[in-house]
Amino acid sequence: MGRKLRRSSRLVDMTQHLLEHPYKLIPLTLFAEQFGSAKSSISEDLSIIKELFEYKGSGLLKTVAGAAGGVKYIPLLKRELAETVVQEICVALEKSERLLPGGYLYMSDILGNPETLNKIGKIMATVFAEREIDVVMTVETKGIPLAYATANYLNTPVVIVRRDSKVTEGSVVSINYVSGSSKRIQTMSLARRVMPEKSKVLIIDDFMKAGGTARGMIDLLKEFNAKVVGLGVLAEAADVEERLIDDYVSLAKIAHLDARNREIKVNPGNFLSQMCH
Amino acid sequence: MGRKLRRSSRLVDMTQHLLEHPYKLIPLTLFAEQFGSAKSSISEDLSIIKELFEYKGSGLLKTVAGAAGGVKYIPLLKRELAETVVQEICVALEKSERLLPGGYLYMSDILGNPETLNKIGKIMATVFAEREIDVVMTVETKGIPLAYATANYLNTPVVIVRRDSKVTEGSVVSINYVSGSSKRIQTMSLARRVMPEKSKVLIIDDFMKAGGTARGMIDLLKEFNAKVVGLGVLAEAADVEERLIDDYVSLAKIAHLDARNREIKVNPGNFLSQMCH
Repeated sequence: MGRKLRRSSRLVDMTQHLLEHPYKLIPLTLFAEQFGSAKSSISEDLSIIKELFEYKGSGLLKTVAGAAGGVKYIPLLKRELAETVVQEICVALEKSERLLPGGYLYMSDILGNPETLNKIGKIMATVFAEREIDVVMTVETKGIPLAYATANYLNTPVVIVRRDSKVTEGSVVSINYVSGSSKRIQTMSLARRVMPEKSKVLIIDDFMKAGGTARGMIDLLKEFNAKVVGLGVLAEAADVEERLIDDYVSLAKIAHLDARNREIKVNPGNFLSQMCH
Repeated sequence: MGRKLRRSSRLVDMTQHLLEHPYKLIPLTLFAEQFGSAKSSISEDLSIIKELFEYKGSGLLKTVAGAAGGVKYIPLLKRELAETVVQEICVALEKSERLLPGGYLYMSDILGNPETLNKIGKIMATVFAEREIDVVMTVETKGIPLAYATANYLNTPVVIVRRDSKVTEGSVVSINYVSGSSKRIQTMSLARRVMPEKSKVLIIDDFMKAGGTARGMIDLLKEFNAKVVGLGVLAEAADVEERLIDDYVSLAKIAHLDARNREIKVNPGNFLSQMCH
């Protein structure tokens, strides 16, 4: 660009650049050269941005010193804001018209709204901020937007497991798994080349009942020598006799679902206990 | 918030707020009250942001005067940047290891990378910036991340058409359609409640061959009295005898695909002629 920008313009540009490149180490020289400014001015700019992000609870700027150093934006949603978002989702989920056969709730409107998805994705990114994550994985279909929103804040690729084996993506690994609630045998597949061996994987899904699908994804990952570093769901069902998964994070928990009287009670899930920020 | 912020902090906060709420009319009083600043100072802040966004080619700030007025951020990617992004995608698509049976190309890595997806989504949002859009629609599975990225910049909901009729989302409209290339009869479904009647719909998909799937989506939309205001695909196949769709925008066009000699030639699609910005 080359044109020398004033501090005010630099701040706008740097804010945009940082927000668009989370978890990426940006050398201060990149900004300095682009703006024709001294590194000391850039450092002052960054401390203004850092202070504002912390004041608003919208993320951290981490500075890494030294020649290979730079600045990294870590998107975070502070506790109170996360609680408010989840509270709103719980209220929205309690509407009786959401009741679907089989103890499921209609959530496509929530999962189709970009602003809501971004907030949920940012909460997931906050919960799993301390884990080392190479890839976010989900299974088609409803979990995809949420996985993408989460990966957007973590700046990692998304990998989508397919529910059939007729996948035209080269060689494919398929497994059979037993759906925890319906006890039916189902298939899921992942193309070999979509995920490098030994990847560290965060699994994201929209809903967890008995956990059969999550269990299937974990088994599938063994075929890739991958490591599951976390499992996050938007909502979990409460009336589960035997859950196949213990270690997971949920934002909301359906505490009570009475299909006959059309009553739903939804509480916040266990995510708050998992937030270190 | 109430705390009085200096211009530099205001600029960081307003930049973030605008980027996170595209196409939303934000009253200047919202900023003025939040920062304890005069509206005239807010106006000056906004003109700094506006100038920088235009200089960088990353969007417009539209100001609406009057009591019900405010400011609106329109995300745009300027022509040269869009061309560069598409050029890079074309080069990436030309790698022979992408060849899949049936004249398809492996694109899951591109469609799984958030930074790339965001750029593609921003180009789509730029191409369709002048259309009135209520909803972005796609069909599962591979088009979903791209539809979501586009909707993120247009700030509209995403609606996902399912490829089977066993959808548990209440009453569902299903249609049969003929896949343009394989000539097989297939089914797609959309739950009644996911889309209001008479919605203005932008269809986004990853790939178009003969256009049978797109044709199916358009037919399905008739059942919702919806209006298709645009159709955008990441890539289109070139060797198509009879295309079922005329009016569409593609970012890339597979000009030549020789499966035997493993040669692929990919050119930019028709998107440049559709960009008014």
